[in-house]
Amino acid sequence: MTYREALRPTDAEAVRQLVSATGFFRPAEVEIAAELVDETLARGADSGYQFLFADDDARSDALAGYACFGRVPATESGFDLYWIAVAPSLHRRGLGSRLLAAVEARCREQGGRRLYVDTSGRPQYSPTRDYYRNNGFIVAAVFPDFYADGDDKVVLSKPL
Amino acid sequence: MTYREALRPTDAEAVRQLVSATGFFRPAEVEIAAELVDETLARGADSGYQFLFADDDARSDALAGYACFGRVPATESGFDLYWIAVAPSLHRRGLGSRLLAAVEARCREQGGRRLYVDTSGRPQYSPTRDYYRNNGFIVAAVFPDFYADGDDKVVLSKPL
Repeated sequence: MTYREALRPTDAEAVRQLVSATGFFRPAEVEIAAELVDETLARGADSGYQFLFADDDARSDALAGYACFGRVPATESGFDLYWIAVAPSLHRRGLGSRLLAAVEARCREQGGRRLYVDTSGRPQYSPTRDYYRNNGFIVAAVFPDFYADGDDKVVLSKPL
Repeated sequence: MTYREALRPTDAEAVRQLVSATGFFRPAEVEIAAELVDETLARGADSGYQFLFADDDARSDALAGYACFGRVPATESGFDLYWIAVAPSLHRRGLGSRLLAAVEARCREQGGRRLYVDTSGRPQYSPTRDYYRNNGFIVAAVFPDFYADGDDKVVLSKPL
């Protein structure tokens, strides 16, 4: 597994395939994930988004996982984790935790002291919430019916 | 007092002066308020920001107040109130409540069922939080030290 931060033109499509393959995201969400890559390819650091890609050394054309994160505007030391995803074939091997730890290290290098992530309160996201809790996040807030009726927003945070 | 939704090229400067005059915002925040106007003048509805201006009929060149709001992405019926400000000379006359009611009406017309606003937990923002509570908002979440040490983020919400 090799980590890299620099974006390649092929990453938008690779992210689209990876995020779609997890089965956790709606088509519109998959498109947003890919658009953030394209926007950052076009605008560079001005986009406000940073990326960390885990390339699968065994398959040169495939991503093993990736994360998208960035500073929370108007805060001194807050970072948001916008996306983190691991290829389903590589689940349950600790890659998600290693990728998250690598993101946290990059936030700390930039003065980050707290990392936030939003997820859904729906039952199908229970493994997602467990993943964050198992990696040191706590639930900071729950917004009832935020995304839709019966679909709460759960905000988790972790000190860095 | 006359309400309008359409932006004029002079609104960025008018918003800069209005927001600055309230004394509640740092220079960088004042610039952001003005930039949202310019971005929406350039991109139209694609910016995701909507505006409501209250013109001061007694002074054709001055804003009495304004609000900036928009849909919360990825939600069915959530709206964010990004900015709301009233000229200091017009405070304590109910204009802030009328402006907020007008924003809420426009959100409801678009299917909005919940309005969110972020503010600071610092003591100097106590009047701001009181204003929202007096207008039907409740505190939905508090994020300790979010903006900086000792500067919490307070999220308030109101059903529409």
